[in-house]
Amino acid sequence: MSDLYPSRLERESIIDRVDPTVYSDVSVGEYSMDNISRSEYEDNGYIVFPNIFSEDEVTEMLNELKYMASNEDLIKNEEFITEPQSNQLRTIFNQHLFSTLFNKISKDSRILDKVKQLLGSDVYIHHSRINIKPAYKGKSFPWHSDFETWHCEDGLPRCRCLTAWIMLTDNTEFNGPLYLIPGSHKKYISCKGFTPEDNYKNSLKKQEYGVPSINAIKELTKKNDLIGAYGKAGTLVIHDGNVMHGSPDNISPESRTNAFFVFNSVENKPQKPFGASKNRAEFLCLKDFKPL
Amino acid sequence: MSDLYPSRLERESIIDRVDPTVYSDVSVGEYSMDNISRSEYEDNGYIVFPNIFSEDEVTEMLNELKYMASNEDLIKNEEFITEPQSNQLRTIFNQHLFSTLFNKISKDSRILDKVKQLLGSDVYIHHSRINIKPAYKGKSFPWHSDFETWHCEDGLPRCRCLTAWIMLTDNTEFNGPLYLIPGSHKKYISCKGFTPEDNYKNSLKKQEYGVPSINAIKELTKKNDLIGAYGKAGTLVIHDGNVMHGSPDNISPESRTNAFFVFNSVENKPQKPFGASKNRAEFLCLKDFKPL
Repeated sequence: MSDLYPSRLERESIIDRVDPTVYSDVSVGEYSMDNISRSEYEDNGYIVFPNIFSEDEVTEMLNELKYMASNEDLIKNEEFITEPQSNQLRTIFNQHLFSTLFNKISKDSRILDKVKQLLGSDVYIHHSRINIKPAYKGKSFPWHSDFETWHCEDGLPRCRCLTAWIMLTDNTEFNGPLYLIPGSHKKYISCKGFTPEDNYKNSLKKQEYGVPSINAIKELTKKNDLIGAYGKAGTLVIHDGNVMHGSPDNISPESRTNAFFVFNSVENKPQKPFGASKNRAEFLCLKDFKPL
Repeated sequence: MSDLYPSRLERESIIDRVDPTVYSDVSVGEYSMDNISRSEYEDNGYIVFPNIFSEDEVTEMLNELKYMASNEDLIKNEEFITEPQSNQLRTIFNQHLFSTLFNKISKDSRILDKVKQLLGSDVYIHHSRINIKPAYKGKSFPWHSDFETWHCEDGLPRCRCLTAWIMLTDNTEFNGPLYLIPGSHKKYISCKGFTPEDNYKNSLKKQEYGVPSINAIKELTKKNDLIGAYGKAGTLVIHDGNVMHGSPDNISPESRTNAFFVFNSVENKPQKPFGASKNRAEFLCLKDFKPL
């Protein structure tokens, strides 16, 4: 299969996105998006829906997370990742496989009706994760396109994938929120640097490959200024797989915790990695293609 | 002389500020502050004045900085500090002594009329500095009270000092702006940890002593949420010596550059350091007490 999105090469370049952002305008359920929302998503590469999950639902999810983080058997799994310079939990992967509650959330119509519509097909979960950016010392995450990694290291051939995520705490301008570059999903940054073997073991702690240069970020922000994805706990955000984003460190006294679910179209199943010699760990590239 | 603000001890504690914040309500010139501004400063420990310096003035200052940063003889001075992990210029100390332009700015009535009024006396410069937080990779600065360091390591006995600073670039929510805790200047965090010898050589790159714990920051933010000091280039900010502040890293594509001038009351000349075995370098604690 030809590679429409080459990356991890000798030099950086900026190429056009080949794929659509919105694959269908057909409503697939009560919670699908209206024309205005779809058009906003198409233009910006992300959309924020406040007040989707109630306070009670958020509390339930936080309690579930607390339970998982304190379960000594669970945290031995490789899906549980710690901060670069400490043993504090930074990420849990595939919470939907470890928890009945998060499994239910991953199939919630408030999410799936939008996701299936945007991707214009049935979908499955490529992976999911909960990111905890601890108060006072949570580290920044460099600029990246998720899809660049999923393409190069997991073999997703086309950009027909996205992330739907739920704020489990308030995301403010102070606690290390996601910064996004509106419209950046229409360009693909072909990144410099050949992927080292087993790169993911380091990149889950600190990403160094698939990170655009400052010049690429400057180019992408020529048309649009950065925005911060801010909102109260319970807010739902959907962002395109290729939208450029990163996040600063969190020196504030409030932790920032978000639950991410990566959906891929069943028409876009992973092939061999396009920019790495072998696949990442299985938990990062799930193979349960049964439509949700 | 008794120590009203003990710090760098075996354990952290929070004590009350003994000194006033505003020492005088008498106008000392055309640019003094009105009652409302003084009261805001008294309550919050800082105040932001937009549009004080014109675009032309800012350009002139930036050109002067560029000249200083590129002058190979100048940058050999110990007043020129680089980033922890690179040789990129992070800070120039005492720009008012290296540059006629910044010397003139340091005596500008738009600043001095306010400063003399707030400190209720003649003033001199304890030190000045220009901080450059480079785009994409500028590092965060941990929470601290300036006065805690000036008291412990320079011997300023009372909190009768402040910083007036000029934004030389826009300071946005994205480029590593100063976060302040309004009202925090009324409490003094007596910090844990005995000051090591020659601490300043490391602390100018990465402060590790005089940094409050997360619990202290939580306590200080109980009454007031964080604020970010945002503004266009040309904005003037005055913040009390003891207001708690810090700043996150700068992952944005825009550098953040500010010129700080630390003013101390001539009634508050430095004694022996209160929390260190010897003085910091002379350039950090200037002894030219001639009133400005």
